[in-house]
Amino acid sequence: MALTGVLKLAILAVSLAASAPAFAEEAAPRLSDSEFARAKQIYFDRCAGCHGTLRKGATGPNLEPEKTRVIPVESLAIVLAEGTAGGMPPWKGILSNEEMELVSRYLHLDPPLPPEWSMDQVRESWKLVVPVDKRPKSPPKRNWQNYFGVIQRDVGKVSVIDGDTKEVLSTLDTGFAVHILRTSASGRYMYSIGRDGKATMIDLWMDPPGIAAEIKTGIDARSIDTSKYKGELGDFTDTYAVVGNYWPPHYVIMKGDTLEPLKIVSTRGYTYDTNEFHPEPRVASIVSSHNAPEFVLNIKETGVVLLVDYSKLDAGTVTETKINAERFLHDGGWDSTKRYFLVAANMRNKVAAIDTLERKLAALIETGNKPHPGRGANWTDPEYGPVWATPHMGEPMVAVIGTDPEGHPEHAWKVVRKIPVAGNGLFIKTHPKSDNIWVDNILSKDAEVAQTLTVISKSDIGAEPINLRLSDWGKLVHMEYNRAGDEVWVSVWERRAR
Amino acid sequence: MALTGVLKLAILAVSLAASAPAFAEEAAPRLSDSEFARAKQIYFDRCAGCHGTLRKGATGPNLEPEKTRVIPVESLAIVLAEGTAGGMPPWKGILSNEEMELVSRYLHLDPPLPPEWSMDQVRESWKLVVPVDKRPKSPPKRNWQNYFGVIQRDVGKVSVIDGDTKEVLSTLDTGFAVHILRTSASGRYMYSIGRDGKATMIDLWMDPPGIAAEIKTGIDARSIDTSKYKGELGDFTDTYAVVGNYWPPHYVIMKGDTLEPLKIVSTRGYTYDTNEFHPEPRVASIVSSHNAPEFVLNIKETGVVLLVDYSKLDAGTVTETKINAERFLHDGGWDSTKRYFLVAANMRNKVAAIDTLERKLAALIETGNKPHPGRGANWTDPEYGPVWATPHMGEPMVAVIGTDPEGHPEHAWKVVRKIPVAGNGLFIKTHPKSDNIWVDNILSKDAEVAQTLTVISKSDIGAEPINLRLSDWGKLVHMEYNRAGDEVWVSVWERRAR
Repeated sequence: MALTGVLKLAILAVSLAASAPAFAEEAAPRLSDSEFARAKQIYFDRCAGCHGTLRKGATGPNLEPEKTRVIPVESLAIVLAEGTAGGMPPWKGILSNEEMELVSRYLHLDPPLPPEWSMDQVRESWKLVVPVDKRPKSPPKRNWQNYFGVIQRDVGKVSVIDGDTKEVLSTLDTGFAVHILRTSASGRYMYSIGRDGKATMIDLWMDPPGIAAEIKTGIDARSIDTSKYKGELGDFTDTYAVVGNYWPPHYVIMKGDTLEPLKIVSTRGYTYDTNEFHPEPRVASIVSSHNAPEFVLNIKETGVVLLVDYSKLDAGTVTETKINAERFLHDGGWDSTKRYFLVAANMRNKVAAIDTLERKLAALIETGNKPHPGRGANWTDPEYGPVWATPHMGEPMVAVIGTDPEGHPEHAWKVVRKIPVAGNGLFIKTHPKSDNIWVDNILSKDAEVAQTLTVISKSDIGAEPINLRLSDWGKLVHMEYNRAGDEVWVSVWERRAR
Repeated sequence: MALTGVLKLAILAVSLAASAPAFAEEAAPRLSDSEFARAKQIYFDRCAGCHGTLRKGATGPNLEPEKTRVIPVESLAIVLAEGTAGGMPPWKGILSNEEMELVSRYLHLDPPLPPEWSMDQVRESWKLVVPVDKRPKSPPKRNWQNYFGVIQRDVGKVSVIDGDTKEVLSTLDTGFAVHILRTSASGRYMYSIGRDGKATMIDLWMDPPGIAAEIKTGIDARSIDTSKYKGELGDFTDTYAVVGNYWPPHYVIMKGDTLEPLKIVSTRGYTYDTNEFHPEPRVASIVSSHNAPEFVLNIKETGVVLLVDYSKLDAGTVTETKINAERFLHDGGWDSTKRYFLVAANMRNKVAAIDTLERKLAALIETGNKPHPGRGANWTDPEYGPVWATPHMGEPMVAVIGTDPEGHPEHAWKVVRKIPVAGNGLFIKTHPKSDNIWVDNILSKDAEVAQTLTVISKSDIGAEPINLRLSDWGKLVHMEYNRAGDEVWVSVWERRAR
């Protein structure tokens, strides 16, 4: 195959300011208050993402005391140090031996109930750094629609880079462990959300780009988006922003241009299949519909997809369509028509296709070992018509799914191709103007493979993909096209300062 | 005024099998396990209805330890014994002194968290007593559409009476403290719901009427209804039943003809106004829409009205429109067009009018001291057009509200009349074929007034209402018209066996 377009790679280093404070306190049979507080914090920072704050399990297994107490503390500490074949990373070298032992002892105790975070706290945290009328009235002279945002996760910063000149325009403090960045419907604002629940709004019209507002919507969060619908029911471009939280399990709707909080809605509820109450159903990901005044929220533990209609929020009404999908929903994206939303239930090895028009599950598709699409990638397959694809955390394979039940009913919601790639990975990316499909191999245990991207050709889809090793350090992840579609940017992920 | 129609009164005695077991255990500074269990049960049976299982307050004030501990146990016991001016009944004579002291001590302790009640328990409790194909294929020869159901609350029984012949056809065991009875859309089934969360389905085509199915949907419940919509979106007559629970705070949707449980949805969430998380938002009342495939659920603590769309339940989808109304929603009913639903927020002295077409709050109307409409009463006022009315728990007055924003916009959502009645009361009732509006005075402290019904004439609405003392014992409540509209039945409520 041939790589089409002009390919330039900007390799960006993401560094971790190493901080491993000495833990000197003598190990005791029970945890002292200070040990408990420290273990709780380490668990929250390192473990809760997969196992849940209440330890009920999700991407990782249940770690409630009835499960953990049958395993000696020493054995738990070894598991922490070495990682597991199931996908838990080894923590030795990142946590100290004392920290791992502390967490292991903590796991024998009942998980503490984290505090609530209601409107009073949300409002208290809100900072309108630059009011709307103090912001620029016109865009900067730069090609701001080709700006790139880059998260430096472990130092809690976001940089904005001019995609034309490659200048770093701003590096902004955005909070602990920023998880994602999203651009507003108009493109003017960039929103980040961190694992500390802090949302930050960056105004790209400021010169240089700067923080316009920030707010802490909870104690742990992973997703943010803004309203994108414009049509018969109104123009909601940038009107609302929404953050989905891990803890407390809720979502917060804010004004899009100021982050002023308007409404909190709980996600606590029952699992879709067994109808058991779950105290911690986390909002795993959010996308915003162009076809309806709705956000699409994926609730991990209950396996429910919520279509949240914000069109009557002014009148005090929110409508939530709860669609049964599959447990452990994680990330996903639209098909090419934006009628169907495809979301990975990664611990069930499935992708759920949600029909947002008929408002129901269209299909559950078995794809492979732990699909992780990011937002997936859409193109028109020469044989199968419109398709959407996802890589996998658990195997080196891209699953290609037919998404056109009207034009290609025989292929709809079936895996029509399984394309082998170099390693297990997290993201896939393409651009309508590009013939290339980019896939990372970041989860490969082979360091060189993790430094390699796999490139698939849309027009020559049956051909052997090309593997490009583009770095001799770190791991490659997060491919992003520029606006023109003739350039791909990639992050080099490195856990330690280089 | 003249009483029109033939008026016959059937006075039905409701008796309480007195049970006041001796409480002999010596009072201790702290509660023993058995004392705690007993106090918890008394609190649950007698106090939780108004104060909440978690004691956060609703119809009655908050009773969490930070509020109660500043009051000595002895003083609390006196309040329990004597009742309050705010509306708490005196418990002396109903609870023993020892029981009141026990509850007072219990109120100084942290409220225990009641257990969950998930699908496993719900399903386990389900008894299909008579399968659908074993039930009668045709109605009995009696005039079954004029059957009356009468709750004997404190003995946990429901009687079915032939309205034509006045014969008691069946007396059925329905569970602890049955709260309401509802008839299915077709009229064939009668459903009861008890304070133990037990729903019972009575088949009126059986001869005599008998129990067809039962299920325990939770630990405490207050409301039940069935789907009534028939139209373009399908025929849902009797298709689904729904129970609204106090604990756990959720609703359960079942098959209408068998009570087979299908879906549990949590109501735990945030208050509509302050956006604070509330662990116990109780489903206070439910009505079923004829205009849309929806149940209307009133959530007391959060002040939210839910429109629950059941039309896609088969596909695993439930849509919940959350309408901000007012705190402490209790009971309510439709306007004459069934577009607007009027619900009392009784501790806020208001009625909320919900526009179920526009899906928002139409108005909040200040009516008087603690409105309690039951389902209210509709008629056409000679001066103000279509109106809806509610009596009050806190004052002897019926508030009449204009409900016709199109035909009578100047009167819409305003109190157009305040009609004085004999005493404070709970219910109001009329019939399209009757000129009479019946109001009870059951909350009057004057025993003779509580034995009196007030009758208002629709055609001579400005005239002095007529007061009819119809019993020389007990208290009068629950007026029900017969099918023809020419007869009213009334219950005599007596807490002790006569």
